[in-house]
Amino acid sequence: MGDKMAGLRRMFYPESVAVIGASANPQKWGFGILHNLIQGGFAGRIYPINLNREEILGVRCYKSLTEVPGPVDLVVVVVPPENLEQAIADCVKKKPAGVVMITAGMGEVDEAGKRKESEIASRLRAAGIEGLGPNCQGMMCVQSRLYAQYVWLYGKPGRISLLAQSGNVGSSILGRGIWHGIGFSKFINYGNEAFTPVHELLDFLTEDPDTGVIAIYIEGPRDGRAFLKSLSWAAARKPVVILKGGVNEAGTRAVSSHTGAMAGSNQVFLAAARQAGAVVVSDLDDFYYAVVSFAGQPLPKGNKIGIVTWGGGWGVLAADECGRLGLELPPLPEQLARELGEMLSYRWSRNNPVDLATSGGNRGLIKSLEFVARNPAFDGVIHIGIGMHLGALKMAEESFYMKQPEQEGLRKLWLEGSKKADEIIARKALEISVELNKPVLVASDMAASPGPGNIGWEVLNESGRLIYPTPNVAARAMSCLVRYRAFLDRGKTD
Amino acid sequence: MGDKMAGLRRMFYPESVAVIGASANPQKWGFGILHNLIQGGFAGRIYPINLNREEILGVRCYKSLTEVPGPVDLVVVVVPPENLEQAIADCVKKKPAGVVMITAGMGEVDEAGKRKESEIASRLRAAGIEGLGPNCQGMMCVQSRLYAQYVWLYGKPGRISLLAQSGNVGSSILGRGIWHGIGFSKFINYGNEAFTPVHELLDFLTEDPDTGVIAIYIEGPRDGRAFLKSLSWAAARKPVVILKGGVNEAGTRAVSSHTGAMAGSNQVFLAAARQAGAVVVSDLDDFYYAVVSFAGQPLPKGNKIGIVTWGGGWGVLAADECGRLGLELPPLPEQLARELGEMLSYRWSRNNPVDLATSGGNRGLIKSLEFVARNPAFDGVIHIGIGMHLGALKMAEESFYMKQPEQEGLRKLWLEGSKKADEIIARKALEISVELNKPVLVASDMAASPGPGNIGWEVLNESGRLIYPTPNVAARAMSCLVRYRAFLDRGKTD
Repeated sequence: MGDKMAGLRRMFYPESVAVIGASANPQKWGFGILHNLIQGGFAGRIYPINLNREEILGVRCYKSLTEVPGPVDLVVVVVPPENLEQAIADCVKKKPAGVVMITAGMGEVDEAGKRKESEIASRLRAAGIEGLGPNCQGMMCVQSRLYAQYVWLYGKPGRISLLAQSGNVGSSILGRGIWHGIGFSKFINYGNEAFTPVHELLDFLTEDPDTGVIAIYIEGPRDGRAFLKSLSWAAARKPVVILKGGVNEAGTRAVSSHTGAMAGSNQVFLAAARQAGAVVVSDLDDFYYAVVSFAGQPLPKGNKIGIVTWGGGWGVLAADECGRLGLELPPLPEQLARELGEMLSYRWSRNNPVDLATSGGNRGLIKSLEFVARNPAFDGVIHIGIGMHLGALKMAEESFYMKQPEQEGLRKLWLEGSKKADEIIARKALEISVELNKPVLVASDMAASPGPGNIGWEVLNESGRLIYPTPNVAARAMSCLVRYRAFLDRGKTD
Repeated sequence: MGDKMAGLRRMFYPESVAVIGASANPQKWGFGILHNLIQGGFAGRIYPINLNREEILGVRCYKSLTEVPGPVDLVVVVVPPENLEQAIADCVKKKPAGVVMITAGMGEVDEAGKRKESEIASRLRAAGIEGLGPNCQGMMCVQSRLYAQYVWLYGKPGRISLLAQSGNVGSSILGRGIWHGIGFSKFINYGNEAFTPVHELLDFLTEDPDTGVIAIYIEGPRDGRAFLKSLSWAAARKPVVILKGGVNEAGTRAVSSHTGAMAGSNQVFLAAARQAGAVVVSDLDDFYYAVVSFAGQPLPKGNKIGIVTWGGGWGVLAADECGRLGLELPPLPEQLARELGEMLSYRWSRNNPVDLATSGGNRGLIKSLEFVARNPAFDGVIHIGIGMHLGALKMAEESFYMKQPEQEGLRKLWLEGSKKADEIIARKALEISVELNKPVLVASDMAASPGPGNIGWEVLNESGRLIYPTPNVAARAMSCLVRYRAFLDRGKTD
């Protein structure tokens, strides 16, 4: 395994990249890939391979891969199927560490395509070359500033790595993350999985020191048994979140024409994946929020959750979702109830959720969060209260009353006060979570209608923690953290 | 029932509104309510009631409700509990059509509060007065420009009415809708339900010609049997979507301290609500998208769905979710497969989902949508392809290559082309749906990271149809439409 991992490492942290099929035509993928390599700031050597051009995008072209002087670590193949033969022959001669085959129209189309890609795979593997695809969008590694991919997605450095059989599902997670300022390490779109099998890519991410959380979108591994073995090895070391494509008859049919994968016996596969320690989700947004939660939040020590809310309905929905997922909402310990009671008005809930019923103001929101988070009865907190000041902000900005010249002072006070309040709550949620090493998930409408001036949103996004757009999403993300912790604990004690 | 409905009608379309407890202090609810009435542009007479002031916000004050000359249709009560007695006595004398009691700290706090609110209720009802609350945020009616509420949420006119036991759950739906430009009719936050029972409010919305879709967030009706009867009457006439708060032990405990409602036997209640024709959801975002879908989309004739997608993974996730929900994905009829095959490249899926695998360009996306939508094999379409041009747009805006002066022409072409492409697809999705009277739900990452310049987003939002942020959300919304249609059909034939 050492050699193989070294090969993959060289592929993701290359000193040189060649693009066979590089094009000067901005409409072509062969342009997009080369462009993105340059745009992404790849620091190593780039070799466009093109028969007819001297240079593309200011970079010198070579007529074939074999003409390139010195070693090439990574080769991106983006030629039409009819030119594949030559490209592969050249790769076998040049022996790069890895090949990314963008070219599609193979195993996902018909049996002939399946035979073809499998024949190519044998030749590459015999030459000791790793490979992604065919039928993929490419790969990225933020730490090596390598964007060997078609999509316009440049991440900031972080510890989330995506292993995605589908380019556009992976892009969705990347796109959301970039919008929120979340950091990433790798995006590996492996398409038809004709070359390096997904379990070896997973092994690589498990060993990769830049990867802290592994997010997998998988339709069907070629070698299910090997995948589950690698999964088990990975999940014991890092959180692994899986979104499975093709979980029923309708989805399985879609899979067969997408990546040609065999979705197989899904319920057995999913049960085995859970057994191996993966956190399995079934919704694209849940996938995103679970992955981001593992990257941004500490793990809870158990399943006892405290909910602190400014408004009752959101507290009820959070409680319902926790109940649905088997999270416990312990009653408030007496001492805590007393402390809260001394601070809050007669209207508060005296219950978990701690529903402030809008009483106690900002201080109430912040102190309740702090009291509940500090109490050992709770392993994690869902906090609902940030963004409650957006109404005041809106009013300060748009109200006929506030626009009167004589209210200018009040207007400014409200404008600044509303922003400040959210900032303080967001910082408290962040600080207390770091201090106590307990997850504090903040849920707010703010995440559902974002915009400039949401300082709380900015504070939490910058810290990589985000705001969850509904109480349901927050509770589901918390349950992912809890499930993984439970797996780790069982792993230790069983 | 006639008188009662007439009373509620007068309450929601009043000619005059009094605010008992109106305040000149911007920190107080008694200010916020009065302010919002004025800000919202209420065209009738407004009477602030305040012992110590001559005027507030430029409106003449009265010392008590009974001093107001002429009739008062609606009274908002926003006094502390200790001043409630006088306010109620005045209401009983003045006999408005309705009272909105914002005042909280009653039935949701303890048994004494429960007795108190029930005693007030008897007096109001004996005087023929309708009422919301106590412990609520108020109400709005966009068509009468009535914003007798505390929150800063001004809708544009539409056919969605919200009946919400929780103010902040209702506000979430309103807030999302306003952000997306969705129209509303009424927001009724009924809090502790001590006065007019929720089933009568529901009857009112069923009769209300301005209401086309009814969205209910309910924790526990006081009279479950009457509610189910009204629900049955409503659902036979208009789509009714229900989000239930308190569906398990954890949620039920939260409910009891929120609105003091008895969540009761939830599974029985939910089954009965479905039986009565309500579409029941359990997630806040699903609630929003279901409600908006009923307002913006035609009902499908059955459960046969066609999926057209630009990218395979999203197609798989949409298919999985459809399968999970019992929606059928029929195979492509031969003639349709031929038509699509003539237009698309060899790579397309030849399957439902119609996965273009990025082939065929915009024309492919548009024509595939059109062919599938027109085919009688499908009752509704999920279309995934808008926003695929955002990468090109980003590139035109930010690429080092496009910034070169000599690429200015190309840059402009891409900028405009990308926007135009999305606009055309969005318009086609809209037009074909209207023409064929079939739902066409567009799902795209665009809705997950919105921003200015998303013309497709703007086109669909303006039409009230929105873009669904994930394939899962789109499929779940489609299943809500399908379930309601199935109920209507059973209602006809059984």
